[in-house]
Amino acid sequence: MEFQTNPDIRFITNEAFEAKIKQIEIEMYHEQVLPKRIVAAAPESVSATGLVEVAGYNPGEGIRMDRKEQVIVDFGEHCVGRVSLAITSLGSPPDAPAKLRLSFGETPIEVIRSFDSYKGELSASWLQEELLTIDVLPETLELKRRFAFRYLKIEVVDTSPKYQINLKLSCTTESSADKAKMKQLDTDDQLLQEIDRVSQKTLMQCMQDVFEDGPKRDRRLWLGDLRLQALANYATFGANDLVKKCLYLFAAQTTNEGQVSANVFIEPRLIPDDTFLADYSLFFIDTLLDYYRETNDRETLTDLYTTAIAQLRVLEDNVLPTGEVSVPQGWWAFIDWNEPLEKQIAIQGIFIYSYKRLKELAAYMEDNKLVDELDDKIQTLEQYALTTYYNEEKGLFVDPASRQIAIPSQTWMVLSGVGDGELRRNVLENLLALDDEQIVGCNSPYMYHHYVEALLQEGFREEAVRIIKLYWGGMVENGADTFWEVYYPEDVTFSPYGDEMINSYCHAWSCTPCYLFRKYGIA
Amino acid sequence: MEFQTNPDIRFITNEAFEAKIKQIEIEMYHEQVLPKRIVAAAPESVSATGLVEVAGYNPGEGIRMDRKEQVIVDFGEHCVGRVSLAITSLGSPPDAPAKLRLSFGETPIEVIRSFDSYKGELSASWLQEELLTIDVLPETLELKRRFAFRYLKIEVVDTSPKYQINLKLSCTTESSADKAKMKQLDTDDQLLQEIDRVSQKTLMQCMQDVFEDGPKRDRRLWLGDLRLQALANYATFGANDLVKKCLYLFAAQTTNEGQVSANVFIEPRLIPDDTFLADYSLFFIDTLLDYYRETNDRETLTDLYTTAIAQLRVLEDNVLPTGEVSVPQGWWAFIDWNEPLEKQIAIQGIFIYSYKRLKELAAYMEDNKLVDELDDKIQTLEQYALTTYYNEEKGLFVDPASRQIAIPSQTWMVLSGVGDGELRRNVLENLLALDDEQIVGCNSPYMYHHYVEALLQEGFREEAVRIIKLYWGGMVENGADTFWEVYYPEDVTFSPYGDEMINSYCHAWSCTPCYLFRKYGIA
Repeated sequence: MEFQTNPDIRFITNEAFEAKIKQIEIEMYHEQVLPKRIVAAAPESVSATGLVEVAGYNPGEGIRMDRKEQVIVDFGEHCVGRVSLAITSLGSPPDAPAKLRLSFGETPIEVIRSFDSYKGELSASWLQEELLTIDVLPETLELKRRFAFRYLKIEVVDTSPKYQINLKLSCTTESSADKAKMKQLDTDDQLLQEIDRVSQKTLMQCMQDVFEDGPKRDRRLWLGDLRLQALANYATFGANDLVKKCLYLFAAQTTNEGQVSANVFIEPRLIPDDTFLADYSLFFIDTLLDYYRETNDRETLTDLYTTAIAQLRVLEDNVLPTGEVSVPQGWWAFIDWNEPLEKQIAIQGIFIYSYKRLKELAAYMEDNKLVDELDDKIQTLEQYALTTYYNEEKGLFVDPASRQIAIPSQTWMVLSGVGDGELRRNVLENLLALDDEQIVGCNSPYMYHHYVEALLQEGFREEAVRIIKLYWGGMVENGADTFWEVYYPEDVTFSPYGDEMINSYCHAWSCTPCYLFRKYGIA
Repeated sequence: MEFQTNPDIRFITNEAFEAKIKQIEIEMYHEQVLPKRIVAAAPESVSATGLVEVAGYNPGEGIRMDRKEQVIVDFGEHCVGRVSLAITSLGSPPDAPAKLRLSFGETPIEVIRSFDSYKGELSASWLQEELLTIDVLPETLELKRRFAFRYLKIEVVDTSPKYQINLKLSCTTESSADKAKMKQLDTDDQLLQEIDRVSQKTLMQCMQDVFEDGPKRDRRLWLGDLRLQALANYATFGANDLVKKCLYLFAAQTTNEGQVSANVFIEPRLIPDDTFLADYSLFFIDTLLDYYRETNDRETLTDLYTTAIAQLRVLEDNVLPTGEVSVPQGWWAFIDWNEPLEKQIAIQGIFIYSYKRLKELAAYMEDNKLVDELDDKIQTLEQYALTTYYNEEKGLFVDPASRQIAIPSQTWMVLSGVGDGELRRNVLENLLALDDEQIVGCNSPYMYHHYVEALLQEGFREEAVRIIKLYWGGMVENGADTFWEVYYPEDVTFSPYGDEMINSYCHAWSCTPCYLFRKYGIA
């Protein structure tokens, strides 16, 4: 696991932007969700998810529990919100506090396994847990933290031999997405309908004060996620002010040179993270362009145009006169969770893609000088890509040193519009003809999104739908009520962090089928 | 471990008394206590208490901690109050919550051992623990619960590889005792001075909204403890309204027959426990008498006189015409934590003692009819005790069936004033002449108190001081800043509950040396 720390970075603040952010009001929507049933861990042979129903949940009755007892409550759907517990006692007056341990899980594994068994590389503090000591009963507790969960394991650490407790639970959800705007996909294909529903729900759960990457983890605004969330949002909830707020959040504090951070914190105040990713910085351009096209909000475009150009400028040193993007060692660009992947070609593609998008912004701004400058740069970058990476014989983009053929490389070359349409369609056709063992594929839903979009862009509609059904449909078949940060069809327990419990099971970058369906008329 | 449950008991409420309780205002006193040093578990050979200082604590700097790190903070003295933590981060912006586990201990063992290793019979919920997940830093947390502790173990469950935390701690103490009224004992004997200081501090820590038995456990008003606390309070803090409030609390809800419960809860409202102890019920009489003598509060005496008589009446069925107190099976009277003890003689003594005290109350109330009635009853009870339990040959009170000679038996016969002064002095002299193996002794500080008072009452001053120095002095030598619920000189780890961690190390019934010193002019 690699972490960037850049202790010497100093950020400059645009106070006008910070003032604008304060004026953007984000409406929050709430719903009350009650438990649906009591479940218990079961042998794998009995239940694919690892849990089976053992009792119903009657909201009027609640759950009666003895000391040392444990139950797993299933709320029936993924919830993001505040949990309240109404706790009463039965028997003698409570002569000792009631002590409860609550463990929240987006998935069964988080409530089946003990958090003590966690062995991952990310902070164990993301595992959602509360230890409650209640001195006086009855009491209704409104838990202060927001949780993302479907399952809640409750362990009565102890009461006393003289009394039992009764619990009534509820969750008040929180989202800045108006659920009333969720639309059913107009198709008879039930799997596509379900994929569409789950992708909209995924987006909704991640829409909070900002577009979060995941409501369980990292609960934070990342640029790479924002870009895709914004697209899905335009196709569904239309909370455009939330996109605007997020764009200003990135622009309000940048490095001296104007680079935006890969992600920002908004509490206790706006703080950009000291992590920078070349692709994420460049995607500020694309996100601003999409926003402007959706809203025609000229004021925002004018405000943030300089920030968009700054992303070009801060990364320009990495573009050699030959047109090669020189990629430094280390965690410089994200692209995908993919150790064997040679990222060079994909990065080249993202530069070309972003330069083209910036050129469009410059055109809207009637900044002809920049349009001309970019025309030259794009040509050089494309020329380099075609001469150095495009392999005529194979009809594919091939890493010159390792001879690696990778889906991310083809994807970003296609999305960036390198070559003519025939070349790009040939590339995809040749790629589809290869066996899995011959190529480096996609790992994250984020990379799958780009691959599918490249296919759709070039008209490979049937193949795109097949992949969506296999990949996002695979999560649905594995019980997903929201789409996951990580999904390896060949190993559903895989985690890039060394422990599946820490994976986010409601993750923004997986929410795009609802966008792809509508953008490309799949129904 | 035996627990009483009496699910069918119905209590009747005296609303006038409840209204009076509401009008009694108890002033609370507060002090700020800061940590004194950082300590760590050490091999026994290094430190008798198990802890050694490893660093100082600088209030301006606080404590810097890395993920997974653990420290034990020593506040230097027993504290009862609310703890606050000012937590800041160092390094990159916090990219994961800070998760902390806090374990509070009155004694080193509670912070050296893991709470998971607890094997006692009382509820594990008494072990004082908090699990904090802090999403946004910096934050100052005011913990909601009140804790009783000197030591605080802090474990950083996790932060993230990108940041550390810094902690500043403080405790705002709570007590209804005015510390300014603590008086130093006028003696050159430093051990007696220290015993006196610790006994006053023990009382102070237990003085809250009510006289609690212990601020860690059970945090509750027990009649047996109240009686001794009230005596110590008259000799020191003089918070007489607190005694009055507690007397009304017992009287405000009784059984249909008027019996007071052994203890009451005051939150969420007054609730008498369903535990009844014959000796504790009878001690309502004594506590009221002491209160009236101290305050001349005629209104309270008049109000509560009926409740005092009721304790006589509800237990009268157990007094046979012969004068024998018939003792049922089970946990009927407390006397002492003492399995082998035959409680019969001590109980007989407590009946005689209480009847005599009630006679004094009746005299104050000019209730001559009851005075006469009690004169007869006392005579019958005393006659039975002398003929059945007093062994002329040994000059001691001896259990007729088991031939057991027990300190509690002699103690309560002496305190109740059975026989003439010569007989009682002889009994104590004969008792003191016996070897430990020949007798059943005292176990709890509560029983030690009564034994020492019996010795002082009959003029065995030197012997009484010797026992105080051995017993309460023994706790001081074991590092006590407040006196313990349980102290076995031959095994300081002993617990009547099966695990020393659950013992209360600041316990009301151990606070009486400050009373004994002043009542009997020991200085």
